[in-house]
Amino acid sequence: MSKKRSIRIGLLGFGVVGQGVWKNIEKNRLALEYRLGTQLEITQVVVKDASKAREVLVPSGSYSEDPARVVDNPAIDIVCELMGGTSKALELTRRALEQGKIVVTANKALICEHGEELFEIARRNGGHYFYEASVAGGIPIIKTIREALVANRFKLIFGILNGTSNYILTRMEREGLSFDATLGDARKLGYVEADEALDLDGIDAAHKAVILAYLAHGKWVKLEEIICEGIREITGEDIEIAGQLGYKIKLLAVIARDFEANKLSVRLHPALISKKEVIAGVDEVYNGVSVTGDVVGTTVLIGRGAGQDATSSSVISDIADAVFMLQGGASAVISEEDEATHQILADGLELALGDELIGRYYLRIYVRDEEGVLAKISDILAKEHISFATVNQKELEDGTAKLMVTTHMSSEAAITRAIALLNGESSVIGAPVSFRIFDPGN
Amino acid sequence: MSKKRSIRIGLLGFGVVGQGVWKNIEKNRLALEYRLGTQLEITQVVVKDASKAREVLVPSGSYSEDPARVVDNPAIDIVCELMGGTSKALELTRRALEQGKIVVTANKALICEHGEELFEIARRNGGHYFYEASVAGGIPIIKTIREALVANRFKLIFGILNGTSNYILTRMEREGLSFDATLGDARKLGYVEADEALDLDGIDAAHKAVILAYLAHGKWVKLEEIICEGIREITGEDIEIAGQLGYKIKLLAVIARDFEANKLSVRLHPALISKKEVIAGVDEVYNGVSVTGDVVGTTVLIGRGAGQDATSSSVISDIADAVFMLQGGASAVISEEDEATHQILADGLELALGDELIGRYYLRIYVRDEEGVLAKISDILAKEHISFATVNQKELEDGTAKLMVTTHMSSEAAITRAIALLNGESSVIGAPVSFRIFDPGN
Repeated sequence: MSKKRSIRIGLLGFGVVGQGVWKNIEKNRLALEYRLGTQLEITQVVVKDASKAREVLVPSGSYSEDPARVVDNPAIDIVCELMGGTSKALELTRRALEQGKIVVTANKALICEHGEELFEIARRNGGHYFYEASVAGGIPIIKTIREALVANRFKLIFGILNGTSNYILTRMEREGLSFDATLGDARKLGYVEADEALDLDGIDAAHKAVILAYLAHGKWVKLEEIICEGIREITGEDIEIAGQLGYKIKLLAVIARDFEANKLSVRLHPALISKKEVIAGVDEVYNGVSVTGDVVGTTVLIGRGAGQDATSSSVISDIADAVFMLQGGASAVISEEDEATHQILADGLELALGDELIGRYYLRIYVRDEEGVLAKISDILAKEHISFATVNQKELEDGTAKLMVTTHMSSEAAITRAIALLNGESSVIGAPVSFRIFDPGN
Repeated sequence: MSKKRSIRIGLLGFGVVGQGVWKNIEKNRLALEYRLGTQLEITQVVVKDASKAREVLVPSGSYSEDPARVVDNPAIDIVCELMGGTSKALELTRRALEQGKIVVTANKALICEHGEELFEIARRNGGHYFYEASVAGGIPIIKTIREALVANRFKLIFGILNGTSNYILTRMEREGLSFDATLGDARKLGYVEADEALDLDGIDAAHKAVILAYLAHGKWVKLEEIICEGIREITGEDIEIAGQLGYKIKLLAVIARDFEANKLSVRLHPALISKKEVIAGVDEVYNGVSVTGDVVGTTVLIGRGAGQDATSSSVISDIADAVFMLQGGASAVISEEDEATHQILADGLELALGDELIGRYYLRIYVRDEEGVLAKISDILAKEHISFATVNQKELEDGTAKLMVTTHMSSEAAITRAIALLNGESSVIGAPVSFRIFDPGN
């Protein structure tokens, strides 16, 4: 099969990432084209508003508001969907894949919500859907799990998949700032998505966890089925107390498979994690993923999780893989579209319920500062067979006290019931807050 | 092109890694074969001594002492060279590549010494030479640099590439043990290569640095041309003092490219590195590599650098890539054999001499414990425009003293000259020891 002398790329969307792809292909074009053995041409750029001023200038002939010039254009070899969102992007991705095209995307929300359908369309029509940039920006986690660790089955994948929340937690820790003060700064720096729930309520990272769960285990999990808790409840004092106990508080994605019970736990929540873990040292806007394979052991990848350049680096690596696929005339990568593979991986696999979790917990409870209150709280927890590992009591000025405790091993169900009991207790003020303590060896 | 229903693999060598490849293909055979869309058969295993008892049992018909049954066998699709060494392995790899075969290897010494010739033979004959397992065991550093970060040029790659020396340094640090005591333990655990210079004098890690330099920059560097210093000079007290100053001492491989001057520095030596760097936290037998690309920023990969399972995980991932190459009928990976690419990457690139290094240094100097000796040492260094950043003087029982100092920025040439001057100074006992302080931002 003769190789194409030129590969034509169409961009849907020309915002931060789209312009980054353009800019960075230009930057290292010579080395890149030699490596790929072909020329790369971005021949079409489709935007919502062509009159809007943009940093990167594109020849006017290739610039339009008409997605058909990319999606339905037989001259386009690779479609890059970098517009975001889940309605128009869904329609266009579907249309491109139906025509057997190769689509490269950074759209985690779209894959999370419609991946099952889109991979199926790609499979049926001989197209392919690449998505390295959708999880952890510049970190090659998709390629690593899919190709480099192909010999493995994955007991545990966990990590930090949202840079904005990690930035907020890092500054709270280092500077003793409140959540609100740090959030204000993060907003000013443009780190927070327009829809703040994506960053602050863990939804963005949960999208990515769902994608990794599918990649590693062949099972589509719905966002509504999993624990998804953000960082809004975390106070500076929680971070401080955790620090004294040897922990950091991080917003963790956890994808844990119990091969014996054939259960899969996918979740996204803040957790105390020992400072000795490499992932605990991943600070600021960095992301980090720890992958434990049954052959390779534990491998950790750390890098920039977002931003124009890191994300476009991953988009360009997908374009490179797409080029090899186009030139080779056959699927050069292990295909997520392959139904049989995923049936094998996911055979009989069931989703674990949050209630089935077992571990240690951190609880923060406000109480009336009266005699015997600690004993009372302790008695309530004992009813659920929960015992204290550490206790930190702090008197507040208004006649109340703050209890910050960690527990010995307990079930999540027991913690949930204990919190309900605490809520009904007159000495307890407001709702107790609990965070899981995550131990990768557990 | 029709796909093969079965891919036949021949193993040259059936030691730790060879048996690991066999065992781990068996372990996850079902998922692996579904992912690859083909069956994997290890049909030939060639060993030096077929009568030797081995843990993994192989059907007797596929077991022999005759390498021709792998290398010259048209029924073998993929040759895995896992025998090690650089004489017989060179001959057989050459012969296999001359026949246009795909060879997968874990043999860093062979690539370091003969890679230029072997890649050239592969290129000329349409074969391919895969080597993920040769650098950093289970860490997918080759695939990451070659494919995932294809959009990038690499200003800096550095890290820990030898697990045994890292294990020794970690135990010296944590337990305050001497080098000799820790080495004894490492020997007992079977961590040290039969040729101890490979681990202790940095040669093994230097082999890997040479490979990474070629991969990232297209330039073959000779081992004799680069700084290669091992860990034998490091004492427990060096580690302790470094720790007090906020550093760890690690055996680092450094591949730094100055794009403006078009110079490449490749080196392997112990260095003080700030504890704040992720790589400084890579302890025990783990390896870690930090890659700074001009698009993606810094990405760090950490994992097991050696051992049967980690290494065979990488061999199997190369086998998987080889399968896709065989099935696709075209090169599915970015080819190291492509001369033009490497000419572009390495165009005009010159190797930097050790003397050109600039940085801060740690010096340990034994002196006669007499009045004014610190001033005298300080004067000698001042002649080379070297000034102290920190000084630690310790009186010893025999009327001598130990000076442990760090310097401000200096050139390596000045340090070398200063050490020569110190050697000629009557107050100085024995030869001063110096370690570089590595600052990735510098």
